[in-house]
Amino acid sequence: MVFNYYMPVDIYFGYGSLSKVGEVARRFGFKGLIVTGKSSKKHGYLDKVISNLILNNIRDVIIYDEIEPNPTDISVNKGARIAAENKVDFIIGLGGGSILDAAKAIAIVSSNEGFAWEYVFYPEGPKSIPYYTRPVIAIPTTAGTGSEVNKYSVISNPNRKEKLAIAHSLNYPKVAIVDPELTMSMDKNLTATTGIDAFYHALESYTNRLNNHIAEDLDVIALKLILKWLEIAYEDGTNKEARENMSYGAMLAGIAIDQKRAGIIHAMEHPISGRYPQVAHAKGLSALGYYVTLYNIKRAPEKYRKLALELGLKDEYHLLETLKNLTKRLSLPISLKELGIVPDEDLPRILAEDVYFTGRNAFNINPAEITEKEIELIYKASLFEDESLVP
Amino acid sequence: MVFNYYMPVDIYFGYGSLSKVGEVARRFGFKGLIVTGKSSKKHGYLDKVISNLILNNIRDVIIYDEIEPNPTDISVNKGARIAAENKVDFIIGLGGGSILDAAKAIAIVSSNEGFAWEYVFYPEGPKSIPYYTRPVIAIPTTAGTGSEVNKYSVISNPNRKEKLAIAHSLNYPKVAIVDPELTMSMDKNLTATTGIDAFYHALESYTNRLNNHIAEDLDVIALKLILKWLEIAYEDGTNKEARENMSYGAMLAGIAIDQKRAGIIHAMEHPISGRYPQVAHAKGLSALGYYVTLYNIKRAPEKYRKLALELGLKDEYHLLETLKNLTKRLSLPISLKELGIVPDEDLPRILAEDVYFTGRNAFNINPAEITEKEIELIYKASLFEDESLVP
Repeated sequence: MVFNYYMPVDIYFGYGSLSKVGEVARRFGFKGLIVTGKSSKKHGYLDKVISNLILNNIRDVIIYDEIEPNPTDISVNKGARIAAENKVDFIIGLGGGSILDAAKAIAIVSSNEGFAWEYVFYPEGPKSIPYYTRPVIAIPTTAGTGSEVNKYSVISNPNRKEKLAIAHSLNYPKVAIVDPELTMSMDKNLTATTGIDAFYHALESYTNRLNNHIAEDLDVIALKLILKWLEIAYEDGTNKEARENMSYGAMLAGIAIDQKRAGIIHAMEHPISGRYPQVAHAKGLSALGYYVTLYNIKRAPEKYRKLALELGLKDEYHLLETLKNLTKRLSLPISLKELGIVPDEDLPRILAEDVYFTGRNAFNINPAEITEKEIELIYKASLFEDESLVP
Repeated sequence: MVFNYYMPVDIYFGYGSLSKVGEVARRFGFKGLIVTGKSSKKHGYLDKVISNLILNNIRDVIIYDEIEPNPTDISVNKGARIAAENKVDFIIGLGGGSILDAAKAIAIVSSNEGFAWEYVFYPEGPKSIPYYTRPVIAIPTTAGTGSEVNKYSVISNPNRKEKLAIAHSLNYPKVAIVDPELTMSMDKNLTATTGIDAFYHALESYTNRLNNHIAEDLDVIALKLILKWLEIAYEDGTNKEARENMSYGAMLAGIAIDQKRAGIIHAMEHPISGRYPQVAHAKGLSALGYYVTLYNIKRAPEKYRKLALELGLKDEYHLLETLKNLTKRLSLPISLKELGIVPDEDLPRILAEDVYFTGRNAFNINPAEITEKEIELIYKASLFEDESLVP
């Protein structure tokens, strides 16, 4: 039990907390940039934010709504130029994970020198002393990514064909406003994908080899809630209790992943959504999660057994079964085959090479020893939907 | 489930984490004030801190060791003058709760205008924006107060005969180094009193009427650990696992109490240790906790039942029984009578009046309705060790 824990975000949680936005923004000044997307406009969330700002005498607001899913360095740089040229006092991110990630990155780039890509894997300096970024107020409209409480911004670079993360303590939002009301407009598919993303955040951060006891305690709480409420939220999007518990569980999983990182499932997913841009990140996770977890349970059952017992399940195979059933009931793909990816002979090897190049740092924190060769075989198992291929 | 959560302390937890102190201090500068006490000198902790600072090229260190238990505004002001005159870059608090509370207060007073007492109940300004206090590195040598992760400094004012708290977001330590090794020199009595303090932090913050779901989740974890490990640490102070789990549980309870405040047990204790300075705070809590909890369980059983079930106990009366047994096995007083306080006829009324004047804000967050009259009767029950007097 040796660990470091740091999570400086000021969190306002609960139904109605959106009405805090103006009061919170006033801490930082009178001029803001709102980074948001089409759906927040459509569902009236943007209007609510703007009227609450006006109630608090903040009338000088610029809207930037050009963030794509998987935000690029180009759109971050553009947002940063707008923020810097207009000398805004704060930035509000209102949307899903992509938008929050972009808002945080825009704050850093607009407040310092250079361009977005220069901050990817920027070395961590001293924490908790006042160096500067524009304050960000993160307002999630999904329950999954946890971006509102973490230091990550995943940025794609189309020129370099790379997808990497800014991971720096400067990149925490100053404030998160987590109002479950905003997640009630998610359709079934978005509820399922963002929910399973949170599930894998918690599963991977619990099981990986890094030490962080607080994160693991939060993971257990998050997994209990997700297993209890995700299907209910999926079946009935108007269930307020389900939405509230999913927002809460996803937030805790977001705190945990920030302290402990994810794992090999996330690392193996990146080459999938990288090569097949039509594949949503969470569907890639879903198509790989079962086979990776089976591999890990075969090689290193202890941590999974411990987790299973904490969740009130019989053993590690009961946990695996639970994962599979959840995936199916959410109509998410359980394999790359179901995802429609047609294997050619070389594909597993090529994907495994990609993981080696971009996600190697997940190898040594995996609960069980794992090599490039074994990753290739796991891809193969998922591509052929044949668990007997899992080494 | 509507709440605000903010806990910006950068935590290093675990055996050996004391060796981080130099590296951490270097974030803040080259000149420090160490606020500490006799026992940290005696057990060699101060020497360890100083040599680790020297390893990191910090040679300019001033020691201030004049903090009494229940620190006064006078000794805080004196420490603040030393910090300001020497223009130190950071302050290290190394000791129990009194010393950490004092170190935090010294940082604020030395960095701003005025004197300690002016900061008691100083109004909260905007959080999470950079206003200034000297950075504090809090290193607890007990497992109980949680001062390392909260914004409270309890200060006594002997001239005014008052004991009040600085409670301000400026008052969080920047860094907490929680090394269970430092708690291993605690004797049985100190292990018991600091441990029961953590127990009541968790019990009161869980059950009071304020909302904070994260705090309550942490309280449950803390109570499970304290119920499992406190007696073991008490019986065998060299049990490393017990010490580690107590440091961890007390820290979580400290985070929780910071978010949700304590309750009427703490409010009723203050007049006791105020009137009878020989009574340690935790013994006062212990002498009142059973009777207050009985009162609350009779009037508002739901929250206690929920907690009991989360802890794997049968019901709320099983929880009360568990509390009583724990108190007895730690050789702590279960009543004011056992504490040796001789009742005269007016005493219960006088104590209840004191609570009304100094702890009234705990009334309306108590799980059950409570009035000054009922508080008087609870005092009486504890003074005569007669639970039939509990209204």
